[in-house]
Amino acid sequence: MTRLLYDLAGAEPERRFSPYCWRVKLALKHKGLDFETVPWRFTEKDVIAFSGQTRVPVLVDGERTVSDSWTIATYLEDAYPDRASLFHGDGGRAVTRFVNAWADGVLVGGIARLTVTDILANIDARDRAYFRQSREQRFGMSLEQVTANRDTDVLSFRKNLESLRTVLAAQPFFGGDAPTYADYIVFGCFQWARCISGFPLLLADDPLWAWRERLLAAFGGYAGAALSYNV
Amino acid sequence: MTRLLYDLAGAEPERRFSPYCWRVKLALKHKGLDFETVPWRFTEKDVIAFSGQTRVPVLVDGERTVSDSWTIATYLEDAYPDRASLFHGDGGRAVTRFVNAWADGVLVGGIARLTVTDILANIDARDRAYFRQSREQRFGMSLEQVTANRDTDVLSFRKNLESLRTVLAAQPFFGGDAPTYADYIVFGCFQWARCISGFPLLLADDPLWAWRERLLAAFGGYAGAALSYNV
Repeated sequence: MTRLLYDLAGAEPERRFSPYCWRVKLALKHKGLDFETVPWRFTEKDVIAFSGQTRVPVLVDGERTVSDSWTIATYLEDAYPDRASLFHGDGGRAVTRFVNAWADGVLVGGIARLTVTDILANIDARDRAYFRQSREQRFGMSLEQVTANRDTDVLSFRKNLESLRTVLAAQPFFGGDAPTYADYIVFGCFQWARCISGFPLLLADDPLWAWRERLLAAFGGYAGAALSYNV
Repeated sequence: MTRLLYDLAGAEPERRFSPYCWRVKLALKHKGLDFETVPWRFTEKDVIAFSGQTRVPVLVDGERTVSDSWTIATYLEDAYPDRASLFHGDGGRAVTRFVNAWADGVLVGGIARLTVTDILANIDARDRAYFRQSREQRFGMSLEQVTANRDTDVLSFRKNLESLRTVLAAQPFFGGDAPTYADYIVFGCFQWARCISGFPLLLADDPLWAWRERLLAAFGGYAGAALSYNV
């Protein structure tokens, strides 16, 4: 029985860029659970209709179908309690919700504003009309207008990462001495950007760069081996 | 043997407003540890010189003197492991560091910009020259300029609280079903504002208002009984 993860793909099937799917892939690796990914495009709603969802990640684990990255992470923690913990206790699980909410708002929102034209350029041709229409509606302007000033916008984006750097000055991972799901939440956002855009979000002397390198190297270099712009 | 906490006070000795001291007072209450507070003013550096610090909180617990709110919280957790936990595990402790860093940056910074003139008006007369000089240097402008547009600035401040609301939509406290140190970190910031300023940061229909009410009522209404502007 194969564990299957429906995973957002770009123009090339191996270009995997969803921040939420990256969280789940690293959570599965953390738990030491084998899985295969199925490349999926935004417009393939019918392919995952069985899950009752219109977006990925969707995980099929035997009899169970689970969607939404946070729900999947807590499912994995509860279904596989003997494997390495993603939260290290109920306190960790509860407080990691804040990391999740902050990352979904500040990081996903901030990165989208800096890279959305690159996303458009790298997604599957069938997805482009849907993507442009839905995102332009969300931003209230053309995608080209969104990223027009990104060379200066990135400076305030980097300032908004200061809370992350404060933590990394005290400990190597957000989870402490070793990565936990809190790390995968934040990493998923930067990996999303790196896989879909050549725009340099992080500078090499940023402590977040070194932290990201540690996660790119984790699990035998799993995330580092992904098709990306290597920025 | 009395446990002593040096606690920042305003013009009235009972006006206690330091966000960091509030974190520690609620952590002590959470642990069920008796303590007395000593009102302390910014310029009384000599009074806490024994601690090697120039700022409060400073906790004297028998033979031990501990300063800095995060250090005190982890000290209490380790020194009193049989009392109620502030973190519920190592995972909680590690991830709560991010809450601490975020609150110190975004919340403390944001609230200071909205209330600093009220702080000036409510602190001890002996502290005012020191406070104005040090804060104007930090902001690079007069305190009156800092808060001049606060009626509109507060709107973006409230938007920056969205990650907190997302968590409270899923669980009653940042620590989960019951408050932990993550709650006291965030609460300390709002309690700081409420005790020193009549400027309304939160609206009554904000989920954060209801959460704050729960913490004002905790420990027999300990924080709710403090001298404040009740906003």
